[in-house]
Order: sequence, then C-alpha cells, then structure tokens
Amino acid sequence: MNGFENGYYKEITPNGYGICIKAKEVLFSKQSPFQKVEVIDTDSTLGKILTLDDLMMVTEGDEFHYHEMIAHIPMMHHKAPKSVLIIGGGDGGTIREVLKHKTVERVVLCEIDGLVIEASKKFFPTVACELDNPKVEILVQDAIEYIKNKKDEFDIVLIDSTDPMGPGEGLFTEEFYTNVKNSLKKGGIMAAQSESPFANPEEIRKMYVLLKKVFPITATYTSNMPTYPGGYWAWAFCSEDVKPLSYFAEDRYEDIKKSCKMYNREYHNARFALPEYLKKALGY
Amino acid sequence: MNGFENGYYKEITPNGYGICIKAKEVLFSKQSPFQKVEVIDTDSTLGKILTLDDLMMVTEGDEFHYHEMIAHIPMMHHKAPKSVLIIGGGDGGTIREVLKHKTVERVVLCEIDGLVIEASKKFFPTVACELDNPKVEILVQDAIEYIKNKKDEFDIVLIDSTDPMGPGEGLFTEEFYTNVKNSLKKGGIMAAQSESPFANPEEIRKMYVLLKKVFPITATYTSNMPTYPGGYWAWAFCSEDVKPLSYFAEDRYEDIKKSCKMYNREYHNARFALPEYLKKALGY
Repeated sequence: MNGFENGYYKEITPNGYGICIKAKEVLFSKQSPFQKVEVIDTDSTLGKILTLDDLMMVTEGDEFHYHEMIAHIPMMHHKAPKSVLIIGGGDGGTIREVLKHKTVERVVLCEIDGLVIEASKKFFPTVACELDNPKVEILVQDAIEYIKNKKDEFDIVLIDSTDPMGPGEGLFTEEFYTNVKNSLKKGGIMAAQSESPFANPEEIRKMYVLLKKVFPITATYTSNMPTYPGGYWAWAFCSEDVKPLSYFAEDRYEDIKKSCKMYNREYHNARFALPEYLKKALGY
Repeated sequence: MNGFENGYYKEITPNGYGICIKAKEVLFSKQSPFQKVEVIDTDSTLGKILTLDDLMMVTEGDEFHYHEMIAHIPMMHHKAPKSVLIIGGGDGGTIREVLKHKTVERVVLCEIDGLVIEASKKFFPTVACELDNPKVEILVQDAIEYIKNKKDEFDIVLIDSTDPMGPGEGLFTEEFYTNVKNSLKKGGIMAAQSESPFANPEEIRKMYVLLKKVFPITATYTSNMPTYPGGYWAWAFCSEDVKPLSYFAEDRYEDIKKSCKMYNREYHNARFALPEYLKKALGY
C-alpha cells in the first residue's frame, strides 16, 4: 500500500517498483474536493515531502531537478517572455523559477486545488517563496475552463499538472491542448510535464499522439528526477513557430545560471537528445 | 533493513531513501568469501534482480541503461578497439555490449567473485549470454593484483565494480588507477562506474580528485539508471590522449545502434553535459 506506514513513505507504480523514504510523521493530511493532500516529514536528505493521493509531488531535497527544467528550457527559447501561464503548480516551485527571468511582467497560476497552495505556503517556504509576488495572479479554478477562448495572451504556458488520472485527467486531451495553443502569442511555447519515459511508456506515447495533432512543432526533453518513477522525467516542448534549440536567450543566461543548481547551457542543449527506446516510442 | 522482507525488496541509502520493489521469492542466496550474493524474483516489470550484500547490481528490466553506457561511450571513442579489460562485471552485461564491436578480438574479465558469475549464468541468461564467447578470458581473481605491471596491453579498460566499500574498495585508489593507466595502449580509454551524482556527492568528489592526479584527461558522463540511488549514474572517462567527443567511430555506428535500447549518437554526445551542481562538485 502506498503512503506512510511503519516508518516509511512508500510509493509503488503499477509496474511493481518505486520509491521508499524513511519518514517521521504526517504533518498535514486533508481531503480536498479533488484529492488527498499530505505533507510528510521524512528522516532523509529529501526533507519534507508533499503528496497528492499518495503520489509524490514535491520533496524539498530534489524539487529543483523538476522546477528548473519545466521553467528554464522553454523560457530560454523566448526572446522576452512577459506573460506566463502556469497550470497546476500550486506548490509555487515553477513560479519561483519563472520569476528569475527579469522580462516577466505577469504570471497567472491556475491551480484547481487551493489546499495545495495552502499546504505549500505553510510547509514549503523555499518552494512557495514567490507565491505572494505582486507579479503573480493566483486563480483557484479549473484550467480547462480558464483556457477556453483565450487568444494571444501568453508567451509561455507551463503545464505543471498531476498525472493523467484524477483531477489532472482533462489536461491530457486534444481540446485542452488546442485551447492552450490558441492562448499563445506569436513565438509562444508550451511546456508540459509528460510522465516517466521508462515507467509510463504507454501514457507518454498517447500524450504525444495528441500533441502532434495540435502543434506543428513538438519535441520532448528529459532529465533526472530522483523521486519520480524511474528517476527520469520527460517534458513536452510544443509551439507553432519555435523549434527546439532555435534560439537561446544569451542576455539572460548568466543571471539564470547563477541562481540554478541544475541548469546551464550545455545541459540545456543536451536535454533534447533522447535514448533510442524513447525516440522510437514517440516517433522522433 | 535492506533486502527482501514482507513481499518487498527494499534498499535505502544512508541518505534515507531508496528503491522498493514488489518481490516474490529469493531464488538464490549464498555467502562467498567476499559478499552475500542473492537473486530475487520480483513481482514487477524489472524481472529478476541480482544483489550483492543487499545492494542492487542488476535487474533484468533496466540493466541495459547501465551496460550500454559503460561500454559504448568509451568504445565509440576508439578507432579500432581490439583488446578490452573488464574489471568486475561478473554478470556479463558489459561483455555482451563490448562484443557488439566487431573489432574486438580479446576481452579479459577479471572478477574477484566466481559466485557472481555462477549466479548470473544460472539466473540471467539475457545478461550473461556472452560469458562463454571464445573471445572472452575469465579470470576469477583480484584485479588489484592482476593489473600490476601490465604495460600497453588494452585499448579499453572498463571498471564495472561495486561501490567503494567491501571488495570494491581497493579499486578506488591512486595506485590502482595508475596501474590501469599503464595497462592502456596509446589511444586507450578507461571508463569506470563512479556512483550516483545526487545520492553520493562526497564519494564521487573524492574519486575524481584521485583520477585527476593520475590521468591528464578526465571527464564524467551521466545517464538515467532507474534502480540505482537517485535514478542517476555517473561514469568516469579517463585517458592520456583521447579527449571526450574528439572521435566517433562512424564505421561501427549503425551496427551498434540497431542492437541498443538506449544508445544513439545524439544521446552519446549529450552524456558529457552535466548539471551545474555536478560540474561544481567535480571542478569541471
């Protein structure tokens, strides 16, 4: 059974393997209208962890692996991103990274579950640290509704969602992706978390079939994510007019790099090189 | 406690986190003069696993992540590797990959523990499949002794060892690396497993301090390894005269790629791009 039990937090994928963390106590556990939100204090270098329906979302120790990749890879492909939409991401980690780009004037966070924001502000101050930044508009609402009929509004849309089950399910549809595409300005880019290449090959394959129907340019990029299944994560890079590695924001680079633990230019360039099994699965 | 218990194989690093796999039964468990060798049948897509002193060495499901990287990255930097020494690697996975290179005439496997070879032959036929190849010489002996006084004998040396504790400890010393360097021919390359960048930052730092004392050219390359700590693994690339990415064996490429699940040219080139925290830790 997944969750906290007998001194361990355990999370086993349907493949029969997963992560195990020595844990001390449940600091927070509440059922929202959407999911069970828990914060567990671990007895590990990962520090506190946030789980949704007993699935790992954030650990203090390794969250930078995920947040730097979802934010800076697309952001550094844009000359001057001013308006950014984050869908999900109520923990605030993606906002923190996005706001490192001095060009940004407005970030909309559309998170369906206010309880995630509440728990993150209380227990993850190093992640949630920019949620109250005046450039941030927090909308506690369903992004599926929010995104409908948006036109030419965002330079960057980041889909920092849960898995394609539960409240995140409607974020993995052709209609939703089409609405995201329409919400982008010229030169705009969508990046979306796209599951574990090794542990969820079928989920990731289905997702890219839809993305390719909607966006003329799609790619995937990957990076290590220690506490997610397989220790390996993928993000979709989608646009109408921006190809991967076609532009790099030299002017912002030093500023971004010095604030990052993962991100640098060589690492950025290397993200789009995929292992052979993943290229085949996604048809690249 | 690490190991098989109550339907799970569990392995927790000193950092307090690790892997957990649904498991069915222990198929093999023997104490050799060096370590406890176990084979466990899991109830997961990983299939059977081989552990040494309750540390994960091989799973049938993800072993290609490791074996393709330790072998093909250095091998593809060599024009015509003929003689290869593998230290450790008694499971046979590295031999299998090395022998995909048609230039290879002789592979010496120097494995201290014959019980690892025995268990692998019996339970891991897809990994151990080339151990009886006539090009392979199997030496069940301590590589520390074997490598002394070797001169200009190998094109490639691959250190496919356990961690720097237990029987593997003497394989992480300046004297040993010096002997390996002396055993290399002109244009020769050593690659060595070098632990988890995220989970063992101190171990990896110490190892590279020694390597840099011995080899004029050192680099590190990394890749996803789902069942090793942090889901992320590093290998050292060391030589007297071959720089990383200075040569690529075009003539063998198609042949190697078609037999691999991970390896391709873009992925090869991207391996040397390190996350910022690792560059800093290793001084690159």
